[in-house]
Amino acid sequence: MLDKLDLTKTTDEKKYNETLSSLQDRLGILQRSLRDLNIPTIIIVEGWNAAGITMTVHEIVQALDPRGYTLNAIERPTAEEKSHPFLWRFWRRIPPRGRIGLFARSWYSRAITEEMQNPGWQKSLKGRSNRINKFERQLSDDGAIIFKLFLHISKEEQKQRLEQRERNPLTAWLVTPAIWNVHHHYDDTLPLIDDFIDKTNTDYAPWTVVEATDRKYTILKIYQMLVKTLEKRVAGEKEGKVKNVKAKDLVKPHRIPVQRRSAPESEVTRETGQQILNSLQIEMLEIQYLLFKRKIPLIILYEGWDAAGKGGNITRMTRFLNPLGYYVVPVSAPSPAEQQFHYLRRFIKRFPSGGDIAIFDRSWYGRVLVERVEGYCSEPEWLRAYNEINEIEEDYVTSSGGGIVKFWLEISKDEQLKRFQQRAADPLKVHKITDDDWRNREKWDQYEEAVEEMLARTSTDAAPWTVVESDDKWFARIKTLKTVIASAQRLL
Amino acid sequence: MLDKLDLTKTTDEKKYNETLSSLQDRLGILQRSLRDLNIPTIIIVEGWNAAGITMTVHEIVQALDPRGYTLNAIERPTAEEKSHPFLWRFWRRIPPRGRIGLFARSWYSRAITEEMQNPGWQKSLKGRSNRINKFERQLSDDGAIIFKLFLHISKEEQKQRLEQRERNPLTAWLVTPAIWNVHHHYDDTLPLIDDFIDKTNTDYAPWTVVEATDRKYTILKIYQMLVKTLEKRVAGEKEGKVKNVKAKDLVKPHRIPVQRRSAPESEVTRETGQQILNSLQIEMLEIQYLLFKRKIPLIILYEGWDAAGKGGNITRMTRFLNPLGYYVVPVSAPSPAEQQFHYLRRFIKRFPSGGDIAIFDRSWYGRVLVERVEGYCSEPEWLRAYNEINEIEEDYVTSSGGGIVKFWLEISKDEQLKRFQQRAADPLKVHKITDDDWRNREKWDQYEEAVEEMLARTSTDAAPWTVVESDDKWFARIKTLKTVIASAQRLL
Repeated sequence: MLDKLDLTKTTDEKKYNETLSSLQDRLGILQRSLRDLNIPTIIIVEGWNAAGITMTVHEIVQALDPRGYTLNAIERPTAEEKSHPFLWRFWRRIPPRGRIGLFARSWYSRAITEEMQNPGWQKSLKGRSNRINKFERQLSDDGAIIFKLFLHISKEEQKQRLEQRERNPLTAWLVTPAIWNVHHHYDDTLPLIDDFIDKTNTDYAPWTVVEATDRKYTILKIYQMLVKTLEKRVAGEKEGKVKNVKAKDLVKPHRIPVQRRSAPESEVTRETGQQILNSLQIEMLEIQYLLFKRKIPLIILYEGWDAAGKGGNITRMTRFLNPLGYYVVPVSAPSPAEQQFHYLRRFIKRFPSGGDIAIFDRSWYGRVLVERVEGYCSEPEWLRAYNEINEIEEDYVTSSGGGIVKFWLEISKDEQLKRFQQRAADPLKVHKITDDDWRNREKWDQYEEAVEEMLARTSTDAAPWTVVESDDKWFARIKTLKTVIASAQRLL
Repeated sequence: MLDKLDLTKTTDEKKYNETLSSLQDRLGILQRSLRDLNIPTIIIVEGWNAAGITMTVHEIVQALDPRGYTLNAIERPTAEEKSHPFLWRFWRRIPPRGRIGLFARSWYSRAITEEMQNPGWQKSLKGRSNRINKFERQLSDDGAIIFKLFLHISKEEQKQRLEQRERNPLTAWLVTPAIWNVHHHYDDTLPLIDDFIDKTNTDYAPWTVVEATDRKYTILKIYQMLVKTLEKRVAGEKEGKVKNVKAKDLVKPHRIPVQRRSAPESEVTRETGQQILNSLQIEMLEIQYLLFKRKIPLIILYEGWDAAGKGGNITRMTRFLNPLGYYVVPVSAPSPAEQQFHYLRRFIKRFPSGGDIAIFDRSWYGRVLVERVEGYCSEPEWLRAYNEINEIEEDYVTSSGGGIVKFWLEISKDEQLKRFQQRAADPLKVHKITDDDWRNREKWDQYEEAVEEMLARTSTDAAPWTVVESDDKWFARIKTLKTVIASAQRLL
């Protein structure tokens, strides 16, 4: 791809200024259209050292309203970012709907920089490109427009620029030995980058390689490409022509029934339960310590019927844990600000770093449960979600070396009624039961269908579901603790 | 304070359980009242090692709805947190209105741990207690309720507990050599802690020292204290009795007129301006590099009349800067989520870490400008804000070694009208001018009063204001760049 470039250069100064100025005006107008249409836009600027990445992003922002974009300069990850999977830090930086996220370098530079030192990087770089493609596809499916620019200069041109910078005392400090070192490896790096660009050149996030020898030419070329692509997209959106739904994801799978039981084989009395729990809780503290020592993260996730006992179960799970190493994430409806992002982002942000335990009280499965049943998202959206969730969970497990334990707390419809009535009759518990709970109960059958489909489609090798028979609270508390301990031991 | 404790212990098991259970119910009810009243509550649990801090926070949360509290366990700061002033990380963790923020250890443990290694810690610890008092007073003035518990055990008791933990193979790993080391210094530490508690025992954030030898006694005592204090406060709030306004802050100061000029002494042509700017911009890049190298943070803040040219000025300021080391924070009205916190929090969160430049396009001064004039906050609130802002800025400068450059962009009322009309007449700029702008203009005199009072009351040694004569844009751009460069040079 790097060799098929149009090298025509613009020479007429006056004409250049006029053209640029008119393109800037059009980009400014487009920014406002994107805002009104609620479309998130990602513009990545990558390229060789000294190819003009900083200059280019600053040229692009000339046309933009500062309140509508964020400029992300990507450098080495912080210690916190390092203890998370590779893409975690970028999930946090994606722009909300209606805004532009500019990236001066991105996940591409990071992938190459982080892999090139390692032996066997060819294979691991392929793994990265797969993960990047999935990431970008998920953003694109969610409506994002993604531009990826690579600023290309020859080795000779790079050398001249570095030498020129060295001659100027005000810029000499910019040229470090590390940069010269990369320069000397230009020829080895070229095919690597070329291949990486090829592998990540998708229809939903295509690359534009720009010849960056002549600054004016570069800027004009980039503006033209941005304006042309965006005008087409905006016009399409306005005519309702854009379909960001992939047909293949919309096929409903044959439903595989999953065993769900609410009654345990044997009941547990309060006294016995308390005793068993106590020793499991101490064991759990030791597990926490071992995970911490080996920097292994763990996600424990609770879903279940209303009144199935999630809260009480979590309290028992954490009873003896050191609060330094665990946290509970109570999940409710997304705030207006959270709704401006891809629905997975608010959860991914709270994924644990190495050694931490994150407990989700409800989770991203809301997409295929409450959001599906109540119509808070469209059918294509929740149908797409199964695959998206499986990808995210698998990526998390693979890249972090951690685990995900997923509990579905099952109670019978009768048991739920009993608990609702008990709550309603107790002045101290009556606040726990709302009209919503009764309304949800009326939709039991629809929820049941959603639950079964969820269990069937998202119980993967990387992150299987455990159905917990929760008609008996003590049995349920013991089973979840035992399951977590056993799962964690397999990670250790 | 540590020697005046009531050591009465509860022995009757049944009575104990009944009392505790009833207190838990009452605390649960209080949590919902605090939520309805929008009161943020902070509960700090401090104490000796092995005094039962983890156990205590877990006992407190037994009574709480998990969706209404956050448990913060405070450990060593991350690298990012370390590069900010001491209290920065805690500002980020304060609870929003209506929620409870529980702290297992807090700024107190951190202050002592971080200072004790240093020579001359007595003096620096005094500095910390002053800063903590200001911090807590600001939170309290904003309506927060602050509980501070210290769990006290004797040296002998601590020794026994540590030995007991060592004997149990499941908990032996908890007792590290570092913990024994602190134990051996118990007697030296005691007066230090006692003094620190005394110095930070204020009417707005009092300490409760709890004898923690007997677990049941401890829990009961804490519940009683929490319930009693909160019931009193909630009752007071409901009767509208609480006045969180300090009379001394409400005295309007004699207004000291500040020189404001909109016209520069000499005008600058576009050509000359462009040339001078260019060399200043390169100088600015070098300044950025030197700040980065020495890990000195810099805040540049812009306030000014509508159409005074803030945006264009910022674009020129950052023209050659490396995006890795600066960011622009465009400030608009707080989101509903941001409104749930102390108004300063959203700005403090964006304060730069060592080596970074943060540019605020509008700022926390909104409190004493637009919020004052438009009545978005009460008079006591904006009157209090001058002192709060001065404290925060001074704390930032003192603790970070960084600087704050504050620009007021002054234009004449006529010049503003001219610019408004130009914008309105240009189809590409008409979106920049809104009805709000015209409405604000009608209140010019009220804004002028607010501006003058702001300049007079917040131009401090640590962070002085620079009025920029902005009728001439080129003059203004040159002056701001020169001012930033000169200010930064004084820091280097």
